[in-house]
Amino acid sequence: MPTKPLILVSNDDGITSKGIRVLVELMQTLGEVMVVAPNSPQSGMGHAITIGETLRLYSNDIFDGVVAYECSGTPADCVKLAKHHLLGDRVPDLVVSGINHGSNTSINVLYSGTMSAAIEAAVEGLPAIGFSVCDYDHNGELDHCREHILEIASNTLRHGNPLGTALNVNFPKAQPGKELNGIRICRQAEAKWKEEFDERIDPQGSPYFWLTGKFIDKDGGEDTDEWAIRNYYTSVVPCSYDLTNHKAVKQLGQWF
Amino acid sequence: MPTKPLILVSNDDGITSKGIRVLVELMQTLGEVMVVAPNSPQSGMGHAITIGETLRLYSNDIFDGVVAYECSGTPADCVKLAKHHLLGDRVPDLVVSGINHGSNTSINVLYSGTMSAAIEAAVEGLPAIGFSVCDYDHNGELDHCREHILEIASNTLRHGNPLGTALNVNFPKAQPGKELNGIRICRQAEAKWKEEFDERIDPQGSPYFWLTGKFIDKDGGEDTDEWAIRNYYTSVVPCSYDLTNHKAVKQLGQWF
Repeated sequence: MPTKPLILVSNDDGITSKGIRVLVELMQTLGEVMVVAPNSPQSGMGHAITIGETLRLYSNDIFDGVVAYECSGTPADCVKLAKHHLLGDRVPDLVVSGINHGSNTSINVLYSGTMSAAIEAAVEGLPAIGFSVCDYDHNGELDHCREHILEIASNTLRHGNPLGTALNVNFPKAQPGKELNGIRICRQAEAKWKEEFDERIDPQGSPYFWLTGKFIDKDGGEDTDEWAIRNYYTSVVPCSYDLTNHKAVKQLGQWF
Repeated sequence: MPTKPLILVSNDDGITSKGIRVLVELMQTLGEVMVVAPNSPQSGMGHAITIGETLRLYSNDIFDGVVAYECSGTPADCVKLAKHHLLGDRVPDLVVSGINHGSNTSINVLYSGTMSAAIEAAVEGLPAIGFSVCDYDHNGELDHCREHILEIASNTLRHGNPLGTALNVNFPKAQPGKELNGIRICRQAEAKWKEEFDERIDPQGSPYFWLTGKFIDKDGGEDTDEWAIRNYYTSVVPCSYDLTNHKAVKQLGQWF
């Protein structure tokens, strides 16, 4: 009998979030699951790692029949601890992160703790996927994502990840009674945030700020993740950890 | 008389670090300087932003004749606050970050707070450069970087940044009495960290970990940033905030 594939699960909303529970349940149908996830929410942490402070790691039994650990660090720390400390010589066949509450489409991928876990795994040469739903409600509907999660994870287990990328998968917010239109392979939409800092005064009379803002999709293409989400498709963007813009390398060569 | 260019300076080692002092001094020879930098070290913060907590911003007079602010947030927060709160309708002609104490070559760019400030600026459409020296001594030599910093910053002011990228500039650790061999435009080397978690026991008997590791350059190319640094060149890698791997988009299209 062939060994079951080993699937490492992490996230950035923390080990007690609804999203990771659904993901663990789905991954248990595909293989042996191990969880290493932050013990507190890490949204917006980008690809942060913990180097100036110590890390804590405790085993946790909240998932029935699943070996799980909670970690004081970031999603990227969780993947590093799993790969280089907990697993010894065992190598995961797949690393999945999420399901994140909130969009990681377009430029949001840069700030995403969810995707940092997946990208960290890709750097390690492991097939990796980050899943997010474009719904900021922490108790939002996730059932509409289940079928595509299984399809994308199964495909990735079968094929491996293309060209050392991590897959950035986003689902639209559920529309009651409506099935998703399908899966679209996309590029990252060209967009930005127009930040609006909400300035307030604390009880001691000092100013403080909340970061808020408006997302502006500057991209007219129909091949982007933003287009897919707006049209009720699941978007899949293969994300590279090599940030080099090779065309720009040539252009810069003329400056010096 | 033409207006002087406006140059925004940030970093991730904090507003009191040696590296930012040198960078401010150099940028003052090229234009009007404004500083918005973290009030504490933010190394390893990647592209983190502050969304679950409030931000503080205080004016600071540690740089003679320079408008400066210290911020409780991350390098990316600093750029957002400068662009969308402090500067009003004024648009910086250049955003520089650093000089970081420690290497941001190769895969290290993913974890880099220094580069997150520059990439955040690139998302805003601003020419941007992150400067780092491959020397972990916080009082390490920086004088050998000065000439190239001015050359690269002047070129960027003149040309703008190519193709919406941010430049990731790294300098080798100074070798006494030896001038740098030149500037090389490079791609990001394919490399990884082999982490080694240093496990210790605290006075209460609980385990904790320090993240340590060994950097492994898997790349044999002579066109990489790692090669440049090893051969005592300044490396310049144009980094894209579009993570899409377009070849992988095609490959994935066959899966579904």
